Amino acid sequence: MPKISSKGEHMPASPIRKLTPYADQAKLEGKKVYHLNIGQPDIETPEIMLNAIKSIDFKVWAYTPSEGTLSYRKKLTEYYNKLGYNISPENIIVTNGGSEAITVALQTCLDSGDEVIIPEPFYANYNGFACMGDVIVKPILSHIENGFALPPISEFEKLITEKTKAIMICNPNNPTGYLYSNDELSELKDLCIKHDLFLFSDEAYREFCYDNREFRSPMHLEGLDEHVIVLDTVSKRYSACGARLGCMITKNKEVINSALKFAQARLSPGMVAQIAGTAAVDTPSSYFEEVNQEYTERRNILVNSLNKIDGVFCPNPGGAFYVVARFPIDDADKFCQWMLEKFSYNNQTVMMAPATGFYSTPGAGKDEVRLAYVLNKQDLKEAMVCLEKALLEYPGRTESKKLKAESL
Amino acid sequence: MPKISSKGEHMPASPIRKLTPYADQAKLEGKKVYHLNIGQPDIETPEIMLNAIKSIDFKVWAYTPSEGTLSYRKKLTEYYNKLGYNISPENIIVTNGGSEAITVALQTCLDSGDEVIIPEPFYANYNGFACMGDVIVKPILSHIENGFALPPISEFEKLITEKTKAIMICNPNNPTGYLYSNDELSELKDLCIKHDLFLFSDEAYREFCYDNREFRSPMHLEGLDEHVIVLDTVSKRYSACGARLGCMITKNKEVINSALKFAQARLSPGMVAQIAGTAAVDTPSSYFEEVNQEYTERRNILVNSLNKIDGVFCPNPGGAFYVVARFPIDDADKFCQWMLEKFSYNNQTVMMAPATGFYSTPGAGKDEVRLAYVLNKQDLKEAMVCLEKALLEYPGRTESKKLKAESL
Repeated sequence: MPKISSKGEHMPASPIRKLTPYADQAKLEGKKVYHLNIGQPDIETPEIMLNAIKSIDFKVWAYTPSEGTLSYRKKLTEYYNKLGYNISPENIIVTNGGSEAITVALQTCLDSGDEVIIPEPFYANYNGFACMGDVIVKPILSHIENGFALPPISEFEKLITEKTKAIMICNPNNPTGYLYSNDELSELKDLCIKHDLFLFSDEAYREFCYDNREFRSPMHLEGLDEHVIVLDTVSKRYSACGARLGCMITKNKEVINSALKFAQARLSPGMVAQIAGTAAVDTPSSYFEEVNQEYTERRNILVNSLNKIDGVFCPNPGGAFYVVARFPIDDADKFCQWMLEKFSYNNQTVMMAPATGFYSTPGAGKDEVRLAYVLNKQDLKEAMVCLEKALLEYPGRTESKKLKAESL
Repeated sequence: MPKISSKGEHMPASPIRKLTPYADQAKLEGKKVYHLNIGQPDIETPEIMLNAIKSIDFKVWAYTPSEGTLSYRKKLTEYYNKLGYNISPENIIVTNGGSEAITVALQTCLDSGDEVIIPEPFYANYNGFACMGDVIVKPILSHIENGFALPPISEFEKLITEKTKAIMICNPNNPTGYLYSNDELSELKDLCIKHDLFLFSDEAYREFCYDNREFRSPMHLEGLDEHVIVLDTVSKRYSACGARLGCMITKNKEVINSALKFAQARLSPGMVAQIAGTAAVDTPSSYFEEVNQEYTERRNILVNSLNKIDGVFCPNPGGAFYVVARFPIDDADKFCQWMLEKFSYNNQTVMMAPATGFYSTPGAGKDEVRLAYVLNKQDLKEAMVCLEKALLEYPGRTESKKLKAESL
C-alpha cells in the first residue's frame, strides 16, 4: 500500500472539530449539546445578501477572473475605504474563504523552512496552513492574566532569525477576543520595519468590537504599505461562513503579482458568492448595530457567569465572539471529551474547544478552554448552569485552583 | 521592503491567462477576439442547477461539514455508482473546485522533494500545484504523431526513483483530448502496484467522450483500491466552472483520514454550490446527449478545418473539448501574442493557449497550440478562417513545416 506523506501524517486535526464524533454520540444518546465550540454564528445572514443569491440571472455559471470580478473588487474598495484603508481594486485578490487568503499569503511570502511569529494562543488552523507549506510557526506566549495583550516586543526580538519572514496577528483575536490597541500596532510596525518583515493582519472579526472601542488595522499606519497584508472574509461579518468568500489586500505590488499566480492556478473564486458579496456591502448599518448589541449582551452573560463559577477565570475581551477561560481542571482535552462522553445535567451538556489546540508550545493552555458565544442568551445561560455542575463533578478537578478561587 | 518567497517568484503564470492583457488591448482597439484559449464552455448550466440556487431557503449561510454535506455526498455516490465506482459517501471529500481536490491529494501523498510522474503535455496548473508543495513533476513526453497516447511503460520505469510517489493522468486529457484505453489503464495499474505508487486520476472531462467511445476510470480496475485517487469537478460536467465545486474520491482510508485534516483546516466547501450540485445529479441524460452532440460537431469542424490549413497537423481526439495542433511556426508563445497584438482579419483575431505552458520539458511544444472548442459552430468557422490568414501572414512561419505539409 502506498504511504501517505509525512506532512499528511503530521497535519494537525482541527481542535474545534475533532470532538465532533463524541458530540454526535451524545446526541444519539438523546442529550442536548450546547455548541460553544465553533465560530458558526446563529445570526441571520443579511437579507440583501440572500436575495442576491435568489435573484441570479445568468445562464452559464462561469469562471470569474482569478483575482475576483472587477465589480466585486470595486464594491469592496468602497467598504474598505470607508474604514480609511485607501486602496483600489488592484490591491485586492478575492479568495475562496479567508482560509485561502491565508494560504496564498503564506505561499507568496514564505518558503519551506521560513518562520512566522504568532502570539499564542492563535487560530488553530494557522498550524495547518503552515504545515501545508512546511512553514515554521514561532509562537510567543500571551497571558490570560492581562487578557492576552500583545507580548512585549522584546519577546519578538528574541525569536527573530535569518529565517523570520513575517509576523501574524488576528485582530480582534480568535480565540481570545483581545482587541489590539493603536499603541500595540505601532510597536509591531516599528518591529516590522526594523527587521523588514511582512505583517499579516487577519481581520475576520473586524466588525465585532464592543464597549465603543474602535477597531484599528495596520492599514491605518503610515509607512507600512510594503509590509501589510490584510486577510479577510465575509464569513463572520455577514454571518456567511458557507459563502467561502474572502480576500487578501496589500499595497505591495510584488506581493499582489505573485499572489495572483497562485490565484490563477486555482482559476477562480465562486461566482454566486461574489454576486452575494457585492450586494452585502450595502447591508444597512442597523444590521451591525443590532448584531453588536446582541453579542455584547451575550459576552456579558458569558463572562459574568464564568467568573461566578468557583475556580474559573475569564478576561472580558473587547472583540470577536470568543473567550478563553481558565478552568480548575487537569486537562482541557480530557475535560471537553468527558463533558460529551460522561456528563449530563438535565440531559444536557456543553461542547467547547480545548485551548491546547490554539497553542503551539507543548503543555500551554492545558487548563484553558475556548468558548464561542454564538448561541442565544437563554441557551448561553443554560449552558453555563450545565458547565458549573460539570466542573463540580469532573474527576480531574484541581483543588489548588479551586482553593485559589475561593481565596479571592 | 520585505522579499517575497522564492516559491512566489518561481510560481508559473497561467499560460492560459497570461495573454489576457493583450486580448484586452485588442478589444479596446475594437477587434473581435475569438476565445479559444480557455476551457470556459458557452454551454448553458442545467436549469435544475440554477433553479436550486434561486430556491435556497436558509436564513444562515453556514459552514457545512469539512468533507461536504452528507446529502451531497450521498447524491454523488448515486452518480458515481451508476458509473460502476462502487463507493460510499465516506470515500468522498467535497472540495472548492477540482483545483482544491488536486492540492489536497498532493499534500496528502507527497512531501517536499517527492516526485509525481505526469505524461506531457499536461494541464498547466499541475505545475503550479506542485510548486505550492515543493513537489517535483517528472514529465514523460507523449507525441502528437500518435495523438498523444500513453507513452510506453518502459519510459515511466526509467523515471521511477526512491522519491516517486505517484503517477498523475487526466482522462480524457486536457490539453490533448486523448481518451485513455482500458489497456493503457491496465498497464498503469501494473506499474502502480509494482512500485507501490498512487494513481491520481483527474476526470474533469469524464462526460465528454465522442464517437461512442466509452470512458474508463482506474476506479474500474480491480486490486487498485489503495492506489487510486479520483480528482473531479462539476465545472465542465454541468458547465458550472464558477461553482467551485469538486471532490476527491478514494477507497484508501488512510488517505481519506489525512485529506480530511487538510479539508478541516480550510473549514468547508461552499454551501450554495453543494445545494446546486445535489440538484445537478438529477440532470436529465438528454442534456448530456445534446451537449455531446454539439461538442462532436464542433470538434469535427475544428479538426477538419485545422488539417486543411497548409502546414497544420491536428489529431482527432476522443474526448474533452480541446485539441493540441502543430502549426508551421517558430514559437507558439510569440505567435499567440502576435495574433492579439499585430494581426487582424476583418477586424477579428483568435486567442489560443501556447502549448509550451503545458509541457514541463524546456523547448517542448514550441510549435504547438491548444485550442478549446467552446464557441458555437459559426464562431469556430470564422475563427478558423482568421487563423488560416494569420498563419500565412505570420513573420515567424517556418517553411520546412510548410513543405512537409505540402508533401502529404
